[in-house]
Amino acid sequence: MPSAHPTYAGSMSAVPTVAELASCARVASRRLALLSRADKDAALRALADALDGATADIVAANAEDVARGRDNGMADGLVDRLTLTEDRVAAVAEALRDIAALPDPVGEIVRGSTLANGLQIRQVRVPMGVVGMIYEARPNVTVDAAGLGLKSGNAVILRGGSAAESTNRTLVDVMRGALESQGLPVDAMALLEGGREVVKELLTARGQVDLIIPRGGAGLIQTVVTESTVPVIETGVGNCHVYVDAAADLDKALAIALNSKTHRVGVCNAAENLLVHEALADQFLPRVLAALDGAGVVLHTDPAAGSAAEQAGIPHQLATEEDWDTEYLALEMAVAVVPDLDAALAHIQAHTSGHTEAIVTEDRAAARRFTTEVDAAAVMVNASTRFTDGGEFGFGAEIGISTQKLHARGPMALPELTTTKWIVEGDGQIR
Amino acid sequence: MPSAHPTYAGSMSAVPTVAELASCARVASRRLALLSRADKDAALRALADALDGATADIVAANAEDVARGRDNGMADGLVDRLTLTEDRVAAVAEALRDIAALPDPVGEIVRGSTLANGLQIRQVRVPMGVVGMIYEARPNVTVDAAGLGLKSGNAVILRGGSAAESTNRTLVDVMRGALESQGLPVDAMALLEGGREVVKELLTARGQVDLIIPRGGAGLIQTVVTESTVPVIETGVGNCHVYVDAAADLDKALAIALNSKTHRVGVCNAAENLLVHEALADQFLPRVLAALDGAGVVLHTDPAAGSAAEQAGIPHQLATEEDWDTEYLALEMAVAVVPDLDAALAHIQAHTSGHTEAIVTEDRAAARRFTTEVDAAAVMVNASTRFTDGGEFGFGAEIGISTQKLHARGPMALPELTTTKWIVEGDGQIR
Repeated sequence: MPSAHPTYAGSMSAVPTVAELASCARVASRRLALLSRADKDAALRALADALDGATADIVAANAEDVARGRDNGMADGLVDRLTLTEDRVAAVAEALRDIAALPDPVGEIVRGSTLANGLQIRQVRVPMGVVGMIYEARPNVTVDAAGLGLKSGNAVILRGGSAAESTNRTLVDVMRGALESQGLPVDAMALLEGGREVVKELLTARGQVDLIIPRGGAGLIQTVVTESTVPVIETGVGNCHVYVDAAADLDKALAIALNSKTHRVGVCNAAENLLVHEALADQFLPRVLAALDGAGVVLHTDPAAGSAAEQAGIPHQLATEEDWDTEYLALEMAVAVVPDLDAALAHIQAHTSGHTEAIVTEDRAAARRFTTEVDAAAVMVNASTRFTDGGEFGFGAEIGISTQKLHARGPMALPELTTTKWIVEGDGQIR
Repeated sequence: MPSAHPTYAGSMSAVPTVAELASCARVASRRLALLSRADKDAALRALADALDGATADIVAANAEDVARGRDNGMADGLVDRLTLTEDRVAAVAEALRDIAALPDPVGEIVRGSTLANGLQIRQVRVPMGVVGMIYEARPNVTVDAAGLGLKSGNAVILRGGSAAESTNRTLVDVMRGALESQGLPVDAMALLEGGREVVKELLTARGQVDLIIPRGGAGLIQTVVTESTVPVIETGVGNCHVYVDAAADLDKALAIALNSKTHRVGVCNAAENLLVHEALADQFLPRVLAALDGAGVVLHTDPAAGSAAEQAGIPHQLATEEDWDTEYLALEMAVAVVPDLDAALAHIQAHTSGHTEAIVTEDRAAARRFTTEVDAAAVMVNASTRFTDGGEFGFGAEIGISTQKLHARGPMALPELTTTKWIVEGDGQIR
């Protein structure tokens, strides 16, 4: 397996500083911005081939990380997310080919017009420039972010979790080598190594870095948001609710509540809370609680839901105030009975993280109020919260799910990695 | 003139804190988000009528600020920007009627599709929620920001300069009174008063405030960018260049250089730098320098431009390194001779603030390289830098000119004050 980085361009130190990385990334980004779609797609396929060819090295490097993780007592779920098998390396490489098949966002004319004075103005999509990604254990993010960056014409500075250190180093080395063999700037992607102080440097490299996207737990995201002077897109925390309205189709409601909670628990678009209209307390609540319990879900109930569980002999515990604001990311769910739609809206307003909220109802007016009044990136009517996803939305890729309102909200893919530029063409016009 | 604020809604202190203002603004924003275009336009016209009706009070309050400014030795230019005459109050009110005539950005469907599984997804424009504006002397910004906020369904917290304190208080009182008489939430607009510590509170009210837009000098903007944990849109610093290419039409070049520099000097889209291709050093440079000198422009020249000025007997001084990075906002200009387009691009890359850059050329290839390679909000070919403006671009209004890449770049109007929400409608779909 490679033991050292391919040479960084320019005059870089053995372990490059943030300023050096950012400066080399800026130079690379200027070349990336001029590449045709054909060149970028060929490069993405070359990167994929290189990863395929280096599967043994990647799996070996990953085994080091996994062994270290186990020695340090890493939880099984995290070990699984960290692990790259041969099949998973193939999937990671294939994702780059999928990105190659997507349309190029760069150069799209967003809008334009000819002004009364004859000036022709158009707003054109262009790359951001240099994008920093700060993320945790999953090494596939390293390749996804590098690939989406390349396709959108951006240089990326990758800061993965220390748990995946060897894996990430090998993945980036392989991809940089493939860029070099394509005659492309290797500094289009670089791994930022070092302690927490280099992250702080990255977060304050305003002007050198155009955008930072954090992906990970609430703690990581909070640190980035608080410390960064570089513009940030906040992603990911999802304290999602499913509200079952009085006018719900109860079979749909049961399926949606179960799917939203249990389809995959460690993800931001999983539901953490179930709100049930009190008209359904006798008829539906015992049924949904039994189904959730049967799926292994620990139930945190308010007094009314607890009383229904009690009568049906379903294990449960009283929800604390913290439960309503907790993203369990586990087989746990907070359940409350609400007197009406207003109370459901007020509860969601008080506890939403602005990710995804769902209503189950056959009542048009209730659905309309819910979609209008809930303030979140995605609002579902009669659908699982799990659909808030770039792949499900048909974007073909996803760099993260924005829970903030600036620039991007909801699943982010290639266009969200671009900005725009106004090009104004005249014939000597003055004011 | 009103001596106190109309009562703030809810249980607010006599001088409301940031948290109280933001909380009342949030409540108001929820009502604003549901208003129809007709309701908002009627409110805007009512605000305009109320301002017209209070002209005497406004002019009197403004006279206090102007007198205090003069006592404190305020420069004439700033006094002029601070001053509201009866005509200017009429113009400020009329701007609200203009905003009423603009289309409503809220509710626009940006994109949407029906997925293979039958889910109907659509991305809909919705208000940001609560927007903070931090700005300096010009009191018309108070009314523009309040009006654009109302039209886009946002509550705004206004933090004007202390120099315009009495004027802003009167303007906001009058507008809040008009909102109240329309049955609308008065907290749709509020003035934040107090010392620097309340600004700090506003900048860290993440979650309570959705967006902060600073407008003013470089110092103000730097403070906001550095201290804010609320998402910020950086506006305004414009170190703009006009590059006269070897293939320029020299009459156009002369007119564009003069207009970009002298049409209005205290604004961000005025040019501060002139770059001239060396092929034009004998033929064009003396002519443009003479014209600039004739218009009263102090010339800061590099050695080559200085030598041309010397020979033509035109007053000039040697440019320092700082000159190339200085936004003069005055009748001053830095002038350099460049050997070719590459050198012009490199100079601009080194010194641009990312606002507006212009090339004058009849050479298609040069124009194409310039528009592709210059990294700025707006790139002009054969047109004055002064055209980077929401009004000129046909937006009908402008809340500021973004020089950052996230969310908005260039002139910002109503759509830039909104975010989007994904609405997903299904029939029981699960994953």
